Amino acid sequence: MKKEALLYEGKAKQLFKTDDPKVVWVEYLNQATALNGAKKDQIAGKGELNNQITSLIFSYLHEVGIDNHFIKQLSETEQLIRSVEIIPLEVVVRNVAAGSFAKRLAITEGTPLKFPIVEFYFKNDALDDPMITEDHIKVLDIATAEEIETLRQMALDVNEALKKLFTEIKIKLVDFKLEFGRTETGEILLADEVSPDTCRLWDLTTNDHLDKDIYRRDLGDIIPVYQEVYNRLNQRKGA
Amino acid sequence: MKKEALLYEGKAKQLFKTDDPKVVWVEYLNQATALNGAKKDQIAGKGELNNQITSLIFSYLHEVGIDNHFIKQLSETEQLIRSVEIIPLEVVVRNVAAGSFAKRLAITEGTPLKFPIVEFYFKNDALDDPMITEDHIKVLDIATAEEIETLRQMALDVNEALKKLFTEIKIKLVDFKLEFGRTETGEILLADEVSPDTCRLWDLTTNDHLDKDIYRRDLGDIIPVYQEVYNRLNQRKGA
Repeated sequence: MKKEALLYEGKAKQLFKTDDPKVVWVEYLNQATALNGAKKDQIAGKGELNNQITSLIFSYLHEVGIDNHFIKQLSETEQLIRSVEIIPLEVVVRNVAAGSFAKRLAITEGTPLKFPIVEFYFKNDALDDPMITEDHIKVLDIATAEEIETLRQMALDVNEALKKLFTEIKIKLVDFKLEFGRTETGEILLADEVSPDTCRLWDLTTNDHLDKDIYRRDLGDIIPVYQEVYNRLNQRKGA
Repeated sequence: MKKEALLYEGKAKQLFKTDDPKVVWVEYLNQATALNGAKKDQIAGKGELNNQITSLIFSYLHEVGIDNHFIKQLSETEQLIRSVEIIPLEVVVRNVAAGSFAKRLAITEGTPLKFPIVEFYFKNDALDDPMITEDHIKVLDIATAEEIETLRQMALDVNEALKKLFTEIKIKLVDFKLEFGRTETGEILLADEVSPDTCRLWDLTTNDHLDKDIYRRDLGDIIPVYQEVYNRLNQRKGA
């Protein structure tokens, strides 16, 4: 497999073509961003940790039967993934009130929700990723009714799988953001990453943040907490 | 029927008890507000026009089989309605992109939507009436899944009925906001008002605003345009 031209540069990753049109080469970057890119920093070691955490989690999701784009980890900062056309939606699952949801509805952060909720945001930096409804998704031709139902069900399946995984390592899965893509045959695969950049993870005992809120809210250095998440996942794997 | 103590004062109406616990006496006010009450004015004649327009429209909706709280018009500014417990949702139906929807998704105002969409907003001034999803409505115990389906279907039925009514009088129904209430037995009735305060109405030929956007956007005096809507509705009634 050969790494070829840069296909796309996102906030935290670069995607490169390979000699196989169905395979993309990903390089995780050390860049951290928040507030839709208004806050931005280089944090040494972040790309490596997110690549390793995502690789472990996507392998686990394969094992429990959730279709995703991950092929294999190549190095500390690189992985190979299936080429997909990303659906421009951020699919958010929430188990506990936090962040924009808590603020928007004036619910105390940390309040458990009586069932997991799924939200869709239109992935569009210029519009600041607005929350949208299923009617909006259909009227804007972002996805069909059937695809929306698939996304919702896959997101809830990922939630069940991740809750089990994180409970084993004494972490509370508060909420997380997923992205999905379509393969050349229209199959929907979980894509992007699952890491402390994209999940709210609280220590089950102390409720300490083990996620990007450390950076968003200026609570300290993210590297030790991302390392802690990686260590717990890795110890579980070895168990 | 006797008018008794003030029950509730809203931005545009006062509600009074009557000697029948199932009946409420409404007085339409001349107050106009926008931007969640940040802009506020007294406009002579507005209460009279909205009461008369709403009375005509709610009578028409009764005729076409849509359950609503209207009993009868009492005077130029007063009407009797069924007592209901208002569900704290603003149910918005859109046929054409305009207002917050057009802005939020960067769609040119006036673009027809390929099907009517329904949106729900949490009626809560302190939170600035945020848009919410069906999952939010359920998790917040605002309404049950079955009630949400009823609200959605009633809103779409009102849309079909109003589109027919307004087309007859050469007005384009762009979008509108509805509120619903529960009777003492849990039956859901359309409530509140349907007027140029709560609908975007554009002249079918000129696209001129015949609604509160005249006030929101400082485009002139609302009384002549509200009067125009009333006259067209009234002439139809007489036809």
